[in-house]
Amino acid sequence: MAVYTDITDQELQDLLSGFDLGAPLAFKGIAEGVENSNFLLETEKGRYILTVYEKRVRREELPFFLDLMMWLADHHYPSAAPIRDRRGDILQTVRGKPAALVAFLPGLSVRRPNAQHCREAGEGLARLHLASEGFTGTRANDLGQGAWAPLFAGLKDAAEGLKPGLAATIDADLALLAAKWPKGLPSGIVHADYFPDNVFFQGEKFAGTIDFYFACVDALAYDIAVALNAWCFEPDGSFNITSARQMLAGYESYRPLSDAERAALPVLAHGAAMRFFLTRLADWGATPAGALVRPKDPLEYERKLAVHREAPDLVLMGARA
Amino acid sequence: MAVYTDITDQELQDLLSGFDLGAPLAFKGIAEGVENSNFLLETEKGRYILTVYEKRVRREELPFFLDLMMWLADHHYPSAAPIRDRRGDILQTVRGKPAALVAFLPGLSVRRPNAQHCREAGEGLARLHLASEGFTGTRANDLGQGAWAPLFAGLKDAAEGLKPGLAATIDADLALLAAKWPKGLPSGIVHADYFPDNVFFQGEKFAGTIDFYFACVDALAYDIAVALNAWCFEPDGSFNITSARQMLAGYESYRPLSDAERAALPVLAHGAAMRFFLTRLADWGATPAGALVRPKDPLEYERKLAVHREAPDLVLMGARA
Repeated sequence: MAVYTDITDQELQDLLSGFDLGAPLAFKGIAEGVENSNFLLETEKGRYILTVYEKRVRREELPFFLDLMMWLADHHYPSAAPIRDRRGDILQTVRGKPAALVAFLPGLSVRRPNAQHCREAGEGLARLHLASEGFTGTRANDLGQGAWAPLFAGLKDAAEGLKPGLAATIDADLALLAAKWPKGLPSGIVHADYFPDNVFFQGEKFAGTIDFYFACVDALAYDIAVALNAWCFEPDGSFNITSARQMLAGYESYRPLSDAERAALPVLAHGAAMRFFLTRLADWGATPAGALVRPKDPLEYERKLAVHREAPDLVLMGARA
Repeated sequence: MAVYTDITDQELQDLLSGFDLGAPLAFKGIAEGVENSNFLLETEKGRYILTVYEKRVRREELPFFLDLMMWLADHHYPSAAPIRDRRGDILQTVRGKPAALVAFLPGLSVRRPNAQHCREAGEGLARLHLASEGFTGTRANDLGQGAWAPLFAGLKDAAEGLKPGLAATIDADLALLAAKWPKGLPSGIVHADYFPDNVFFQGEKFAGTIDFYFACVDALAYDIAVALNAWCFEPDGSFNITSARQMLAGYESYRPLSDAERAALPVLAHGAAMRFFLTRLADWGATPAGALVRPKDPLEYERKLAVHREAPDLVLMGARA
């Protein structure tokens, strides 16, 4: 949750002068998304979210993300549709920073997903993979398996500070992941951050997906692995096999997995836990005082890593035979 | 801007079960108000703000604030009307903390008020004073003149840390304010925090007032003094006499000031600057790491104090002859 950029009346007026949305009726900073500043904007024409992209997002990558969001909206996937200005542009500039307006997407994210939410989330993820088919934009996963060892090289002291002996454990994990990382799985657009905060529900029904700013081209099953880690662990650290089974069943009701994809789930889930452990570890020490964002505890993902290390078949117990 | 309390799905559901507002359609933490956590809640019936009161607000004082808000709404003052649950109660409990639902009030707060905004804000403040007449609730101003010297006793080191020699200057100010503080001015309900963040506009028209959690009974002209400090200084620290004149003219178009009130404005403005200087100084050192709120710079109000100390008649130059 974050609002890093304050927007003046004049800046808002300048932005709106390029659109045909009428006068602003309400404008509030909202606690949504960790990387960027987000504002709820209501005008005479409707409700929108204004996102101001902060330094973590590279300006040259924004067309990929925004084109993908436009593609998904055009293909009836429930996501926030970018709004074009009078000249047809999506990308704006506010206070010297890139920015974009998207349609307001109703729905609530769940804080404590149950098995039914996991089923719906699985369906929503498969629908995302199917709706993205034919999208020609491309972006490499810069937080994929090849990035982890170089990232960890600068974080060994941080890992030891977190838990003595952890650096060697992570090194062993990284070696194992490098050796076993699957190649040749069906690939396409992945969300790569399909966490409960980024998925909206209406009641217990899936209602849409937001925050595509980690999206890239990678193995589709990797997206499932990220989601299993994010949705199917209990607060006490245990893996909820019922939730995992529901998530996979929901996914497969739209897009059945191949045998190779199913067999790869344990190592993909181990790797997905590594990815979030490493970035949380990097953020843990690096968040400046005064930032309006609380870094997420890397130990949550250290525990998930341990689960996949010690019981790699747990994930498979959720998979259809 | 702050969201201190995270609310789970179950907690939201429990809260809504006491109301007849239908199912929730959207729920977002918003960056509004510094002291409490605020959420935008949309249900099938409409839009609301859920405020969860954090530790600075005393539970036993909440009935005063909420009754005042209800009174104002009942007397057609544009403010956020509290919503009663099925049992007729306003005050709720969420995650063990006091909370209340109020109607969503449309409008935008201005970041850089111009003279026209100041005129409208003056009108809005006078209308607040008039609309509050007859409200029988009462609450002393616990940040009024009598509180400043005891508060500063614990902050002398902090003041010296901010600017060497400042403690003696503030002591002299406090002695002068104690000697000259006006008594017997017309009193009533004051907002006591009538800053641009707490006032909504539609275009350039006053549209409403929010955040009554400092409201109390005090000299009505003290509220004007707070507002002159908050609205009529330029970012470079200079006092904008045109804005002050407009604010007073707007105020007086609804409620003309007595001679005694007008004569008291310089010392009231000096005192109002002291009140915000002292609380910002206290917050400056006390904000815990990890808080999702940036403390406000006490030096802004140290400079306003200096203006009132050195040119006490400046404020009067804005007053009607």
